Amino acid sequence: MAPKMSDHYKQKRRKDILEAAEKIFIEKGYEHTTIKDIYEEVGLSRGGVYQYFSNKRDLFESLIGDKLEDIYQLTADALEDGEDPWTLLKKRMFGEEQHPSEYNDSLAPVVLEFFVSGRTDESLSVYARDRYHLGVSMYENIIQQGESQGIFTPRFSPGTIARAIISFSDGIAVDSALAGEEVQSKEQSELLFDMIQYMLGIR
Amino acid sequence: MAPKMSDHYKQKRRKDILEAAEKIFIEKGYEHTTIKDIYEEVGLSRGGVYQYFSNKRDLFESLIGDKLEDIYQLTADALEDGEDPWTLLKKRMFGEEQHPSEYNDSLAPVVLEFFVSGRTDESLSVYARDRYHLGVSMYENIIQQGESQGIFTPRFSPGTIARAIISFSDGIAVDSALAGEEVQSKEQSELLFDMIQYMLGIR
Repeated sequence: MAPKMSDHYKQKRRKDILEAAEKIFIEKGYEHTTIKDIYEEVGLSRGGVYQYFSNKRDLFESLIGDKLEDIYQLTADALEDGEDPWTLLKKRMFGEEQHPSEYNDSLAPVVLEFFVSGRTDESLSVYARDRYHLGVSMYENIIQQGESQGIFTPRFSPGTIARAIISFSDGIAVDSALAGEEVQSKEQSELLFDMIQYMLGIR
Repeated sequence: MAPKMSDHYKQKRRKDILEAAEKIFIEKGYEHTTIKDIYEEVGLSRGGVYQYFSNKRDLFESLIGDKLEDIYQLTADALEDGEDPWTLLKKRMFGEEQHPSEYNDSLAPVVLEFFVSGRTDESLSVYARDRYHLGVSMYENIIQQGESQGIFTPRFSPGTIARAIISFSDGIAVDSALAGEEVQSKEQSELLFDMIQYMLGIR
């Protein structure tokens, strides 16, 4: 019988596995990563990983799902606590400094590879749509809150502006993955920043 | 000895192969399409296709390369002929009707699959960057022309605005490929249209 592990310990081990997996996925891409790469990186047995995740896809979905759910929850809590919607929106779009900096999400090309190569798999399509929905809701909630407080006077519906933030950001990510520095992601983010102020009527 | 074919006939046959290939690529995606699918669709022998293209990748690059080069050349000619830059820009972004309509580029997800799955192949990265460059140049030339004629007063450099058009459009394409109608591509294109007028200072 395996020794009993505390919930705290289990949570920590799960997190260790996800951190190791993230490192490997960034290095090798989704397709070329194996469960073996991951359990060797984290220093566990094969069974040690399968205790937490049923396969590579489950592991990858947990990795990117945890991140999105965390940020969604943080956003809902911040709105609840009365954080200024414009500050919150800038944090979500550009990070804690609230302003465009060099684009640097190394996992983004892997997420893209995961969804694009699996786009004809119906169960993955459903997952992709759910994920898209959650992202739209997060931005939509911030914009609606700002609108109701009279801080934003949006030129389009909050849902349309939320989708535009996501599509423009996804476009910068995909072009950066494919064309590298030529994309001038910092300049693109600055233009996105300017566009959002215009779209929300904050001048 | 094979019978001699006129240049005209050769051009036509090459075009027939590319048209058949486009249909198959849209149906099956890049990875799952074979040269056999293509020569059966067009009604030629295997050799009949290999006479024009050395492999699947060459065929696909010819397909998307021809399209981009045609549109680049048409644009250069139109600028030369003195076409109004704003009309021309709207045509390039939204087609002949010059206004956003339902998003409908069936080949876009396949192009995306081709580049994303091959992103670690160095020769493909070079090709991707060249292609990106050509697209940026096309939009940049239109914007520069409009600026020099005093029609546009751009808020960012023509190159940055050109890149933004491409990234935003690519983002709408990738999100549409993954999340389908949820993306509300028509509304996104309308927002893009509004954004471009703002960025170019045409009110």
